[in-house]
Amino acid sequence: MAFTLINPDSLGAPSGYSHGLVADATGKLLFIAGQIAWDQRQKIVSDDFVEQFDRALANVVTVLSAAGGKPEHIVRLVIYVTDKIEYRERTREVGERYRKHLGKHFPAMVLVQVAGLLDDAAKVEIEGMAVLPA
Amino acid sequence: MAFTLINPDSLGAPSGYSHGLVADATGKLLFIAGQIAWDQRQKIVSDDFVEQFDRALANVVTVLSAAGGKPEHIVRLVIYVTDKIEYRERTREVGERYRKHLGKHFPAMVLVQVAGLLDDAAKVEIEGMAVLPA
Amino acid sequence: MAFTLINPDSLGAPSGYSHGLVADATGKLLFIAGQIAWDQRQKIVSDDFVEQFDRALANVVTVLSAAGGKPEHIVRLVIYVTDKIEYRERTREVGERYRKHLGKHFPAMVLVQVAGLLDDAAKVEIEGMAVLPA
Repeated sequence: MAFTLINPDSLGAPSGYSHGLVADATGKLLFIAGQIAWDQRQKIVSDDFVEQFDRALANVVTVLSAAGGKPEHIVRLVIYVTDKIEYRERTREVGERYRKHLGKHFPAMVLVQVAGLLDDAAKVEIEGMAVLPA
Repeated sequence: MAFTLINPDSLGAPSGYSHGLVADATGKLLFIAGQIAWDQRQKIVSDDFVEQFDRALANVVTVLSAAGGKPEHIVRLVIYVTDKIEYRERTREVGERYRKHLGKHFPAMVLVQVAGLLDDAAKVEIEGMAVLPA
Repeated sequence: MAFTLINPDSLGAPSGYSHGLVADATGKLLFIAGQIAWDQRQKIVSDDFVEQFDRALANVVTVLSAAGGKPEHIVRLVIYVTDKIEYRERTREVGERYRKHLGKHFPAMVLVQVAGLLDDAAKVEIEGMAVLPA
């Protein structure tokens, strides 16, 4: 289940993601709902952006694991934030938390600042897709 | 074409969606463009949020049906709203309209509030993906 | 690798996209990260919206080509803009640039106005997915 990362020189070296990822469609597709920093009681675990990022990504991995997948099976992540300044100012910490959960697997990503997330206390929501071995 | 829903206990029980959904990739993939509450003349059918949600989702199902799919083939929905307060205040009605079109099939979902939709009169846009039997 | 476009009469004729697109999942899936109008040094090439659209889409095609794909293999595009008014006012030019890169292949699309893109100078980000021949 090896994926091929696509990072053309002409786009410059991506930091923390890949410009493209090719997966054989012979496996199974896992669609992961947007995850925020909810605990089991569906309460946001912290006001802190980095802690929220950590938990939201942990929740993505929880779904992935429950489906029998591993971090290296993720093909796409979409990160919705409510404050891009906060994201930028704490990029280093975000990167540490990322690697804690997903190691050095960097799939295709999107990051946009939205006008709001459904839970007013949420600062980040992460959606994912994975291709699992058949 | 049975999908496996992934709802880990540690994430709490999701209401109206699933945390994860696994589909065999042996079928066909249907990508559905973002649908708003347009009628055949591409005019928004109502100012009312719930009526718009109803029509946008009906349009998703129109595309799905035209491709030979059924509600239970949907694997992913992304709901873009312009006012999350309105969505929250009318969740019960939204749920009724949801079940009217898709029954009790709850795929992976994302819901975010965006800064705007292309048609100024639109209050909700719904994108979908489905995996159809081969 | 022929895709089936789904454009039900009851939704009206889509302009510059398709309401639905069906792809056989026997090929390979390409996930393309959100592309902005960066040059090789990762600097935005122009302040102008249309020039940015042109370059962001060119970057999408760069990833696609590096993966061995062609424009007609794209199944889904998501266009995030920071100013929908600008997009609307320059739709004709946007269409010209679109056809320059992707010809008359119109996959399923989403376009939303977001609150912000990570690079403050970016006015548009384009994410893509493609299904490539096996």
